[in-house]
Amino acid sequence: MARTMPAISARATLLPASPIRRLAPYAAAARERGVKVYQLNIGQPDLPLPGALKEAILGTDLNYLAYTPSDGEPATREAIAAFYRSRGFEKSKASDVICTNGGSEALLLAFLTMCDPGDEIICPEPLYANYVTLALLAGVVIKGVPTSAADGYRLPSTEALRAAVSPRTRGILWSSPSNPTGCVYTLDELRRLCALADERDLYLIADEVYGDFFFGAQRAPSIRDLPDDVARPDRVVIVDSVSKRWAACGARLGWFYSRNEVLKGAVMRAAMSRLSPPMISERMVQAVTRLPESYYSAIQTEYQKRRDVCLAGVNAIKGARAGNPQGAFYLFVELPVDDTDKFSEFLLKEFQHEGETVSVAPGSGFYASQPASKKEIRLAYVLESEQLRRAMQVLGFAVDAYNKRGA
Amino acid sequence: MARTMPAISARATLLPASPIRRLAPYAAAARERGVKVYQLNIGQPDLPLPGALKEAILGTDLNYLAYTPSDGEPATREAIAAFYRSRGFEKSKASDVICTNGGSEALLLAFLTMCDPGDEIICPEPLYANYVTLALLAGVVIKGVPTSAADGYRLPSTEALRAAVSPRTRGILWSSPSNPTGCVYTLDELRRLCALADERDLYLIADEVYGDFFFGAQRAPSIRDLPDDVARPDRVVIVDSVSKRWAACGARLGWFYSRNEVLKGAVMRAAMSRLSPPMISERMVQAVTRLPESYYSAIQTEYQKRRDVCLAGVNAIKGARAGNPQGAFYLFVELPVDDTDKFSEFLLKEFQHEGETVSVAPGSGFYASQPASKKEIRLAYVLESEQLRRAMQVLGFAVDAYNKRGA
Repeated sequence: MARTMPAISARATLLPASPIRRLAPYAAAARERGVKVYQLNIGQPDLPLPGALKEAILGTDLNYLAYTPSDGEPATREAIAAFYRSRGFEKSKASDVICTNGGSEALLLAFLTMCDPGDEIICPEPLYANYVTLALLAGVVIKGVPTSAADGYRLPSTEALRAAVSPRTRGILWSSPSNPTGCVYTLDELRRLCALADERDLYLIADEVYGDFFFGAQRAPSIRDLPDDVARPDRVVIVDSVSKRWAACGARLGWFYSRNEVLKGAVMRAAMSRLSPPMISERMVQAVTRLPESYYSAIQTEYQKRRDVCLAGVNAIKGARAGNPQGAFYLFVELPVDDTDKFSEFLLKEFQHEGETVSVAPGSGFYASQPASKKEIRLAYVLESEQLRRAMQVLGFAVDAYNKRGA
Repeated sequence: MARTMPAISARATLLPASPIRRLAPYAAAARERGVKVYQLNIGQPDLPLPGALKEAILGTDLNYLAYTPSDGEPATREAIAAFYRSRGFEKSKASDVICTNGGSEALLLAFLTMCDPGDEIICPEPLYANYVTLALLAGVVIKGVPTSAADGYRLPSTEALRAAVSPRTRGILWSSPSNPTGCVYTLDELRRLCALADERDLYLIADEVYGDFFFGAQRAPSIRDLPDDVARPDRVVIVDSVSKRWAACGARLGWFYSRNEVLKGAVMRAAMSRLSPPMISERMVQAVTRLPESYYSAIQTEYQKRRDVCLAGVNAIKGARAGNPQGAFYLFVELPVDDTDKFSEFLLKEFQHEGETVSVAPGSGFYASQPASKKEIRLAYVLESEQLRRAMQVLGFAVDAYNKRGA
């Protein structure tokens, strides 16, 4: 008797494994073999949770782990609104914040409420890999618009962006400071995005999870910094998260920010279906208003130092090239190897130098379309400088070893 | 100049507000007016988090709130697998568990990986309201198959279930013990579901979040209790959660259980897009294996007492009718009123008896199709018995007041 077996959906068949997370078993196996793996593949800050946030968790009555409102407790939303006000955005109100299970869910909810299956979102690329997967779950197509290593991955020309807009396009999505390139858009670049959105009636989806990671005296511009007649409140959505800013990736708390009442209503109805964000993480966020400005400046100093170490390390690898990123904690690097997917596996499965290796994210995962080159990787500089210095040396040795092996 | 404004998606337009959560502002307003509101509308247990779980949270190093693997930490998955083994399911393995953001996300991932837009899932109704909303987000249609108050909302006949199956049907979904009816399916009823799934090549999605809430000596049957040739491992999915079982709704941790490798792979790829479940909640779950059996028997004794108080209360309301539920902590009740949507609002907006009122969930929210009656409500007996006794008296007074008002 023939046995049938239920199939998975077409969309599930299309889902790629995360280009970063699919390497995790190889890293685990390397560690099993006693190899030290410098983990530069994932944006997991090594800094501790700020003390005020930790105290807020410990001060929570853990006897009653209750559902919170679907958009979060009023105190959570007010803390986030106050945080935005402390960044100069006076109009920020608690009622414009909807708390989510990480920034990821905020993005998924944006796609689900803005788009129907087959609709499109345009996005400069390289881009954050999970944009594509989350969009795929919602039946939405991310159309990448290429940027160039030569100019530090700046915003494409308006002509190039406009050429990607079709009748199915519903919005423009970008991250600034950027994952994976570290590029920080200027206010003029943000204005160009707003003008195109007005011209073609599009949503503007600003992923600002790295908003407090920038180098130099000038704060990274936010879409919040533009006046309402430029960045129209009915178009603008901000996706944000506690993960990077407050070194709390495992808290899984993010938020969806909008002043568009109709859209907020839709997101709230969708959010009701999953009941509530995690309560303990909310209590933690309620303490963010107690963090002094020195917390943020210390982050900026520390990551700038790390960036410099990484850039020096790249420059010491013959044939390697990186831009000069002004924010986030990533370096998008061109390496003198034939295929960084293969090279990333080689690092974990075959290579070691004095018992050490490096885990990196292959560049191919950061494109919605076919990348022009197979030579790119993303480095997350989330280790302290001494370790980073060593990791970059090991990476250099690995490039040599890989190319000799191929010879 | 005409100003355009970007529209929300068609699916967002279709999303209903949660029939339970939409009443929350009225309850808040009643409390503002000084009215005591007995909250029987939401499945939020009043019992404290078990001590062992609380200690596990406090024992966690909160300095490093890191991403966990997308399917959860190995120790979390092993704790859940061991919990299933303690329930007699020897085959339970950690590798069959994928941790999720609540049972809600497990359901959403099931819909996304089993179904494409336009596909259908059949489900006995009344059903858990968010099945419909989560399915809608995935473009999936829930087709309700009516059950009857007269026989305690038992599983419909195989003929009735079969009649609901179309070429687009991908699975059968049910909860047992049931939210909202409290009905507990027998092994024979579960066998009938399995036979139909084999006949029509369908997935079997068992929502067992109330699996430890049952009354009487016999444990509530689980799909896990059936042999592999009846409940085929490639068809069976279990959706489960820490929320009810361990009084931890706010932890937002659930799991997707399957032994179908292809399906698990798809769910894992989808789960990677949202990075990880909440770390602290995982650490909590890692302690569930330390809970003694007496924890569960105490729950059962307590909720059985509460059920009996509620049933006595319903029987004291002339013209009211309830079944005799054997599990979960809900009572689906027919009241002698014309429209329970109106009645539920009346309770919060107009009524009070000696400064008290009751919040209930109108029955209309628990149907995918048009309900036969507008007379039903769901009561969640999540208060201790003395309060429940009083709440049921207040409910009786409210029915009288409502019907007098209508006269």
